Amino acid sequence: MALKPLGDRVVIEIIEESEQRTAGGLYVPDTAKEKSQRGKVIAVGSGKTLDNGSKVAVEVAVGDTVYFAKYGGTEVADGGVTYTILSERDILAVIG
Amino acid sequence: MALKPLGDRVVIEIIEESEQRTAGGLYVPDTAKEKSQRGKVIAVGSGKTLDNGSKVAVEVAVGDTVYFAKYGGTEVADGGVTYTILSERDILAVIG
Amino acid sequence: MALKPLGDRVVIEIIEESEQRTAGGLYVPDTAKEKSQRGKVIAVGSGKTLDNGSKVAVEVAVGDTVYFAKYGGTEVADGGVTYTILSERDILAVIG
Amino acid sequence: MALKPLGDRVVIEIIEESEQRTAGGLYVPDTAKEKSQRGKVIAVGSGKTLDNGSKVAVEVAVGDTVYFAKYGGTEVADGGVTYTILSERDILAVIG
Amino acid sequence: MALKPLGDRVVIEIIEESEQRTAGGLYVPDTAKEKSQRGKVIAVGSGKTLDNGSKVAVEVAVGDTVYFAKYGGTEVADGGVTYTILSERDILAVIG
Amino acid sequence: MALKPLGDRVVIEIIEESEQRTAGGLYVPDTAKEKSQRGKVIAVGSGKTLDNGSKVAVEVAVGDTVYFAKYGGTEVADGGVTYTILSERDILAVIG
Amino acid sequence: MALKPLGDRVVIEIIEESEQRTAGGLYVPDTAKEKSQRGKVIAVGSGKTLDNGSKVAVEVAVGDTVYFAKYGGTEVADGGVTYTILSERDILAVIG
Repeated sequence: MALKPLGDRVVIEIIEESEQRTAGGLYVPDTAKEKSQRGKVIAVGSGKTLDNGSKVAVEVAVGDTVYFAKYGGTEVADGGVTYTILSERDILAVIG
Repeated sequence: MALKPLGDRVVIEIIEESEQRTAGGLYVPDTAKEKSQRGKVIAVGSGKTLDNGSKVAVEVAVGDTVYFAKYGGTEVADGGVTYTILSERDILAVIG
Repeated sequence: MALKPLGDRVVIEIIEESEQRTAGGLYVPDTAKEKSQRGKVIAVGSGKTLDNGSKVAVEVAVGDTVYFAKYGGTEVADGGVTYTILSERDILAVIG
Repeated sequence: MALKPLGDRVVIEIIEESEQRTAGGLYVPDTAKEKSQRGKVIAVGSGKTLDNGSKVAVEVAVGDTVYFAKYGGTEVADGGVTYTILSERDILAVIG
Repeated sequence: MALKPLGDRVVIEIIEESEQRTAGGLYVPDTAKEKSQRGKVIAVGSGKTLDNGSKVAVEVAVGDTVYFAKYGGTEVADGGVTYTILSERDILAVIG
Repeated sequence: MALKPLGDRVVIEIIEESEQRTAGGLYVPDTAKEKSQRGKVIAVGSGKTLDNGSKVAVEVAVGDTVYFAKYGGTEVADGGVTYTILSERDILAVIG
Repeated sequence: MALKPLGDRVVIEIIEESEQRTAGGLYVPDTAKEKSQRGKVIAVGSGKTLDNGSKVAVEVAVGDTVYFAKYGGTEVADGGVTYTILSERDILAVIG
């Protein structure tokens, strides 16, 4: 596969997690806060163009594992795999 | 045909895909994420004008195959063909 | 007529099109995408003023045939003719 | 009267028009597009202040007849006359 | 009283007007446009800070009579008098 | 207590006021305008960072009595006292 | 754990508080204002990139105790602990 994201976009492959369940099998959300998702960075764009015309490189790199907001991004099914493409500003943190 | 898109707009010809169906014939969407669509770039505009007056060339080129958000853009029926015109910022990735 | 649009506005005379109908006479829209309309450019403004005070000339010229979003713009009935005035950013493409 | 509008605002006196009616007396709007109104420019402000601190003079002049969006602006009843005050960006075109 | 408004804010004392009524006593609004209100400027702020760090002085002065949008601003009851504090951009015109 | 607000934020201790009531005991609001509240400035942030990277100091100082919009800000209960933290732009005026 | 937040984001571990209750056991909210939450800063991003391309360092530091709006941020469950990741602009104040 060779997906080249545009601008400050990043291609992510989601890491599926088992949902937290109680002993009785029910999912118990902790709070009303927005949830996140883990994924691996597959490709990064050339960065965002600022109003003064210069480019800002993306802060994440191919191979990084990252957290991003659960309902963010757009799905792309490419070569039998489903990727999520999102703007770098929707990525919360890199797992070091 | 000679459609010259304005600014950072791009003229796309959509590549129709067969929907993913289960053996039983039902379409099963994976998640609640926004879906994407594939298309071929037919024409590109001269680029976006920044606040300092300079132009930023469009990152995609005529002939590129790209992914873009499924419900984005405006339809133009020109010369018997239906095109989608969208801003470059609605294009997610180029398929390399 | 002498309508002088302000800023980056453009005066358009709409080119009426016959709607696409099936053999049975029903209109069948292709998709849920926004539709476009064709028109002829009658007059253009002096351009948009950037934040640094300079003007950016409008990309279209009087006499151009253009596509624009179907529900955009404001109607002006002037001298017995109905024109549509819209911002240049609502014009999608020039037909070359 | 001496109304001095602020910034890029313009004081307009509306020119009342007879509505278009069918022979049977019913008003038949052409389309779903926004409608416009004609008026005479009575006073103009000193212009908009850009982010770099410079002023951009208003493009219309006292005495101009202009078209503006029908439901824009704020009414001011001053000295027995009702004026409409609107931002220059709500004026569509000058009638030359 | 000594109210010092912040930034581009202006302290206004409203001039109450008798509503226009028909002979039969009913209020008849002219149009669907937003209505305005008259008031006297009691105090003005030091002005708006632009993105380049410079200040733009307020265009109105203490003692001016101004028109502003009827439902704009916030009420402050200070020393037994009710004032309206609004941003200079909500003032439409000065009565010269 | 030592609350250090961030950016252009200000920590306020609200000054409770008795509501205006009629002789019959009913509260009669004057108008439909937004209401304000009085408070004392307890701490101020280091100021807002402009797009050019410079800081703009906050216009109010510790000890000032200010008016601010009644429903603005976020409550912080710290050391048994409830404070309201709001952005300087939500402060209307200083009582001199 | 090694969560490296992006841009001006901050990783927070929430400090749970007992809710205020009346003698009778009922929670009585003071006002309609937004509520806040206390937390400890676990990691900070490299800062926000301004439009001129320079970086502004985050104002809070690892180990700080901060107040932030109760319903802000996104939850990340990492290494058995639930963190909240939020933008620095959602942090109200540091407890000194």
